[in-house]
Amino acid sequence: MELTIAKIAELVGGDIQGDGSVMIRGVAPFEQASSRDITFAAGSKFLKRIEETEAGAVIVPREFQHPEKRLIKVDNPPVAFAKVMETFHPRSDKPAAIHPNACIGENFTCGDQVLISPFAVVEDNVTMGNRVKLHPHVFIGDHVTIGDDVEIFPNVTVLERCRIGNRVTIHAGSVIGSDGFGFAPDGERHHKIPQLGIVQIDDDVEIGALNAIDRATFGRTWIQKGVKTDNLIQIAHNVTVGEHSILVAQVGISGSVEIGKHVTIAGQAGIAGHLNLGEGAIIGPRCGVVKDVPAGETVVGEPATPATRYFRVIKVFLELPEIKKQLNKLEKRLKTIEGLSDGAA
Amino acid sequence: MELTIAKIAELVGGDIQGDGSVMIRGVAPFEQASSRDITFAAGSKFLKRIEETEAGAVIVPREFQHPEKRLIKVDNPPVAFAKVMETFHPRSDKPAAIHPNACIGENFTCGDQVLISPFAVVEDNVTMGNRVKLHPHVFIGDHVTIGDDVEIFPNVTVLERCRIGNRVTIHAGSVIGSDGFGFAPDGERHHKIPQLGIVQIDDDVEIGALNAIDRATFGRTWIQKGVKTDNLIQIAHNVTVGEHSILVAQVGISGSVEIGKHVTIAGQAGIAGHLNLGEGAIIGPRCGVVKDVPAGETVVGEPATPATRYFRVIKVFLELPEIKKQLNKLEKRLKTIEGLSDGAA
Amino acid sequence: MELTIAKIAELVGGDIQGDGSVMIRGVAPFEQASSRDITFAAGSKFLKRIEETEAGAVIVPREFQHPEKRLIKVDNPPVAFAKVMETFHPRSDKPAAIHPNACIGENFTCGDQVLISPFAVVEDNVTMGNRVKLHPHVFIGDHVTIGDDVEIFPNVTVLERCRIGNRVTIHAGSVIGSDGFGFAPDGERHHKIPQLGIVQIDDDVEIGALNAIDRATFGRTWIQKGVKTDNLIQIAHNVTVGEHSILVAQVGISGSVEIGKHVTIAGQAGIAGHLNLGEGAIIGPRCGVVKDVPAGETVVGEPATPATRYFRVIKVFLELPEIKKQLNKLEKRLKTIEGLSDGAA
Repeated sequence: MELTIAKIAELVGGDIQGDGSVMIRGVAPFEQASSRDITFAAGSKFLKRIEETEAGAVIVPREFQHPEKRLIKVDNPPVAFAKVMETFHPRSDKPAAIHPNACIGENFTCGDQVLISPFAVVEDNVTMGNRVKLHPHVFIGDHVTIGDDVEIFPNVTVLERCRIGNRVTIHAGSVIGSDGFGFAPDGERHHKIPQLGIVQIDDDVEIGALNAIDRATFGRTWIQKGVKTDNLIQIAHNVTVGEHSILVAQVGISGSVEIGKHVTIAGQAGIAGHLNLGEGAIIGPRCGVVKDVPAGETVVGEPATPATRYFRVIKVFLELPEIKKQLNKLEKRLKTIEGLSDGAA
Repeated sequence: MELTIAKIAELVGGDIQGDGSVMIRGVAPFEQASSRDITFAAGSKFLKRIEETEAGAVIVPREFQHPEKRLIKVDNPPVAFAKVMETFHPRSDKPAAIHPNACIGENFTCGDQVLISPFAVVEDNVTMGNRVKLHPHVFIGDHVTIGDDVEIFPNVTVLERCRIGNRVTIHAGSVIGSDGFGFAPDGERHHKIPQLGIVQIDDDVEIGALNAIDRATFGRTWIQKGVKTDNLIQIAHNVTVGEHSILVAQVGISGSVEIGKHVTIAGQAGIAGHLNLGEGAIIGPRCGVVKDVPAGETVVGEPATPATRYFRVIKVFLELPEIKKQLNKLEKRLKTIEGLSDGAA
Repeated sequence: MELTIAKIAELVGGDIQGDGSVMIRGVAPFEQASSRDITFAAGSKFLKRIEETEAGAVIVPREFQHPEKRLIKVDNPPVAFAKVMETFHPRSDKPAAIHPNACIGENFTCGDQVLISPFAVVEDNVTMGNRVKLHPHVFIGDHVTIGDDVEIFPNVTVLERCRIGNRVTIHAGSVIGSDGFGFAPDGERHHKIPQLGIVQIDDDVEIGALNAIDRATFGRTWIQKGVKTDNLIQIAHNVTVGEHSILVAQVGISGSVEIGKHVTIAGQAGIAGHLNLGEGAIIGPRCGVVKDVPAGETVVGEPATPATRYFRVIKVFLELPEIKKQLNKLEKRLKTIEGLSDGAA
């Protein structure tokens, strides 16, 4: 593939500086780009070093100036670059078809241009839209509904009655709709509480590899529009993850947690049951959250604490041996003084 | 399905208050139940608000009284409600059959009413009991034995020689019998220590989604009767998990740990190798256990510490900046006094 | 299988003490070995108790002496014992064959003695060497290359263009080459950054069960020669794991981390993005690493701190309630003195 800089600028709504007729053949990172590649620079760290890249064109922030480099100026260089990457490297597409080695149940309704790969299983009463791709070894349970433009990678399990919206991607090995972890103890043993609800995944969600998203006891575990999850994430029954929230790898969300919109939960953090994370909250990496987090708050650490506070706590924590020494010295000096005072008294 | 309140009371061994001939058509949570549903209330929080539910009947503790509501009084409302849920919503059952697209090895012995789904693989010399259900893409290795009434969800791997008891459920994507992580280093590289043992899973165990349970080096990794595990759990080689213990999501158990009966390990906790957790011990969420825990003890935090103690520690921990300030002020004041004393001396 | 002690000694380069013609029929752990078994003892704990084992022969360190026991003396007993275990218990081998129920794409190149099991999928343009074993339900994407003597367990997913060296083992359920977690936010929503790179796994690597190893954005996520990973591990895009490093269960490595050779990362630890772990570094269990770790350093705790320092910090941490009491008492005593001084003044 080859595109002129002008064509690329048009694609991303950018302004050109330099010769727009130059041909670009690929995308590459800042340091590795050749004169045939386009790259991007955002943040002063890279913008200062812009002469170091050999890229044929650089996507930069709208206000950036440079006398010699060929530039495409945009509002949001990373977003623009993501679009250019997608243009140069579209997902390699298998032709749409239902493979003879797939196993399709009764009463299957599906749109156009669907790909169902070998050894995929679609059980009964499944509905799916257009341009759905099921990779090999995908399992789709009874009464599941799937929208348009959904891609499900190998070895994914989607259990009965779950609902998947449009433009959803589910990466390999994930499990959608396993039973919530609910048992009623009688002092001797644990009685299974049937998990009657579902998982609902809304439009534009991307689920990472090896996620476990449990179905609700009643109602739904709900992954709202635009959510992105990384790998190896646990989402328990009856959780709601609000629109456009981000869950980084190995995060665990306990049952019935309500996560607002645009929340970020960093890697290996854990959220205790029934809590509320307000809109725009940021949960630090490996953070243990045991109470509600207000909208817009950033918490870190164990137990989760507002960030500025926590960093001050940790600073003293790491000085504890010296603190103790100081305290013991003080006690000694005080004793001396007390001796003097006693003598004085 | 429709059942009279009287019939439901009989089913759960409960006493009726109100008209037992009223028909119930479903189960629902406290807030969402309609007059055709049954719900339950346990704990003063819900019992106080019992008039708020529109449920046609409410399962309550034996001693609870209310003049107007239709009640079924039982010893353990959650357990009774779990039974009612199961009655109204039996697992939808596929007819028993060995699908022509399953792949069955040599010398296969199996009981009645077995379901083996498309693309399941059963290797050689496998034995299984009655009413076993293998969902699609399940792998059962050579010489595995499986009891009666076992259900194994899609994409589960059970490797050679592992033993699975009766009434066991294994949720999607779990791996039973992968090699224990054993290597002998020679200073340059790591030599694989063959893992010759097995995993044994006893009766009434439920394994969550995406668990990794490694086979023993010698002997067995042993999941005893009635254990329930949540999702994404790591159980290393030669671990024993005692009867009716509970492991919450993302817990990690290192090699050769011995877990007693009725132990609870909360989410994201980790247990170091070769430790012993006594009967009835409770390990808090995200707790890092580095020494034995006596029977009946509750430990929390990092490093695991008896709970009452730890909460006192954490209280002071979060005041550390003030502690340091107080200490520095004290030092200053002491200095002043010392100056005075010197002057006095 | 039966081997003389002399034959076993030859196999492991050991010196015999006692009758080398005695027949050995199996391997067993120290406490369980019978007179027909061989076992090993390393470390003073077992060497002191050597008379307690009934083993027919014991592999011991080169310098160890005992008048009565039959010994095989070697430089590294665990490594020698691992070799003996392998000799007595070779992996049970299915005959090499491409199963008619496997699904093989176009332009497939493969060596001799390859086993491709039922319901394995090999997409187009795949190349593999000799003696490769793909277990059931394995997925190999387009343009993947695989070396000699590779074994891939059930339900593993290897996505397009990834490269796997020689003598690599990948345990069940792992995902190699899922998309890195890269999104460009525009304030409203997150735009997918296409992940164009690959995962490269070098020779002699063993990957545990249910690992997620993401492909690079550009270039490669690189698992170097001799690395061993345990279960449920997250390796993000563009990470390099240096030769012979060890990653224990549930570890998470963020994007672009560079791990040197012979690094050990203990269970449930997490490494923040773009960090460097120097050669031979040891990262403690559940450790949260937020800055570079120099070569040879051992860090533990949260935040990661040199071990000797951290253990001193934690000792005082657990005394915090007493520290606070001591501080408050001191303040009181100081107040008394100040009162006296004021009186004196």
